[in-house]
Amino acid sequence: MGERRNFRVVLSYDGTEFSGWQVQPGLVTVQGELQAALGRICGETPLPQGSGRTDAGVHALGQVASFELESPIPAGNLHRALNRTLPEAVRVLSVEPMPEGFHARHSAVGKWYEYRLFQGEICSPFAARYVWAVQWRLDLERMQRAAAMMVGEQDFTSFAATDADKSQREDRVDGRDSVGVNPVKRIFSSEWSWWEPDVMVYRVHGSGFLHHMVRNMVGTFVDVGRGALEPEAMAEILAAKQRRAAGPTAPASGLFLLRVDY
Amino acid sequence: MGERRNFRVVLSYDGTEFSGWQVQPGLVTVQGELQAALGRICGETPLPQGSGRTDAGVHALGQVASFELESPIPAGNLHRALNRTLPEAVRVLSVEPMPEGFHARHSAVGKWYEYRLFQGEICSPFAARYVWAVQWRLDLERMQRAAAMMVGEQDFTSFAATDADKSQREDRVDGRDSVGVNPVKRIFSSEWSWWEPDVMVYRVHGSGFLHHMVRNMVGTFVDVGRGALEPEAMAEILAAKQRRAAGPTAPASGLFLLRVDY
Repeated sequence: MGERRNFRVVLSYDGTEFSGWQVQPGLVTVQGELQAALGRICGETPLPQGSGRTDAGVHALGQVASFELESPIPAGNLHRALNRTLPEAVRVLSVEPMPEGFHARHSAVGKWYEYRLFQGEICSPFAARYVWAVQWRLDLERMQRAAAMMVGEQDFTSFAATDADKSQREDRVDGRDSVGVNPVKRIFSSEWSWWEPDVMVYRVHGSGFLHHMVRNMVGTFVDVGRGALEPEAMAEILAAKQRRAAGPTAPASGLFLLRVDY
Repeated sequence: MGERRNFRVVLSYDGTEFSGWQVQPGLVTVQGELQAALGRICGETPLPQGSGRTDAGVHALGQVASFELESPIPAGNLHRALNRTLPEAVRVLSVEPMPEGFHARHSAVGKWYEYRLFQGEICSPFAARYVWAVQWRLDLERMQRAAAMMVGEQDFTSFAATDADKSQREDRVDGRDSVGVNPVKRIFSSEWSWWEPDVMVYRVHGSGFLHHMVRNMVGTFVDVGRGALEPEAMAEILAAKQRRAAGPTAPASGLFLLRVDY
């Protein structure tokens, strides 16, 4: 054992069968699987710090985690060993040694999420785990107008989970501790598009996101898309600063954490 | 209840979490789920006859099943009700009323299968359930030469499962009962191609297939692709009429039943 070395790993996972990112007693979580794999490989079990938590059923194409090890294992060997040890529903895309100060959550300056909606008649069993199959026919142009109103620095209280416990679980990327949640976030881009003939996709890039924020925004956009709400209502919903002003929470299955900016 | 009507359904399923097609006590199977769904919808539980059995973990894009019902439910209503009732890992693509003599297995005259091999470094968690991730670098041109030698009417004993029980379970499409397995099958086409930069695909069309036949052929093609066997050895393997002459059985995860011909 020598000096402690800091590592950054980028992870992709199918969240369907995990109870989310965060370690919980008796449940299978991504953080728990990664910690256990490090233990089997190096005999050390640091708790990997994620860029933020993902909820049960939420997927990742580029989640980032950091941890420190004393073992002298080279990054390339650690990378291969992790992919041999982890379940195939979690893949490590890269392993990099990082300077001491790097922390996957505190160092993050932005995040990208994607949400996939299925709009066809029959959702393929090979897609069902990765979309929200919405029965209503949705008007993308209306949803796009609503999405555009999210851009800028705004108070997103209306789109944050209300559960007292859950509201503490902010998916923070602004470098401060998570005591006292700041509901003001900056959204850089927020757009709907057709990805495939039957699949609509929402991509959002922001400085940080409150718990359930993307899923609550998507649930509200779907209300707009099916005509239950006007796109312009988004301004009032934001101004209300009350969770009940917004629409329902979209299912976890359609949500992907795409990328974290540092 | 009136006259008995015959139906044909086309099914797509993600086989990962099923113990195959065929009903087995205490196990979740596609046939069992379909039978149970019919019971909940119509109060009748005919055993749906599949075009053939698929093993645990094998997928289908176009499995065909037939059954008779006395209920006067219109085909369109039955279709929608089945998709509301079945788990999302099974989708009914179509429901058609058929003349009395139609039987999904006895009436079939051909079948198409596809097998997907992953050749990249890191297999995405979103693909892992649907491929065989092969670590060896494979030579597609050699595999294609071996595959071409399967075409024609030949005795495929060397590629049939040896287990005494399993050898009874022939995936027959020649209209006779399955007592006494005929190992002679006609293969119409047998081809490897690159499907995506990291995914090779094998497509085979034949009059019928013995149990494990496609998976045993693919395991042997992979031996050819990695250089352990010459493409020309396929002729000797066929001539041997012994399972041990051929290569290993490829995993179920990469196999898809694409279509059944009538």
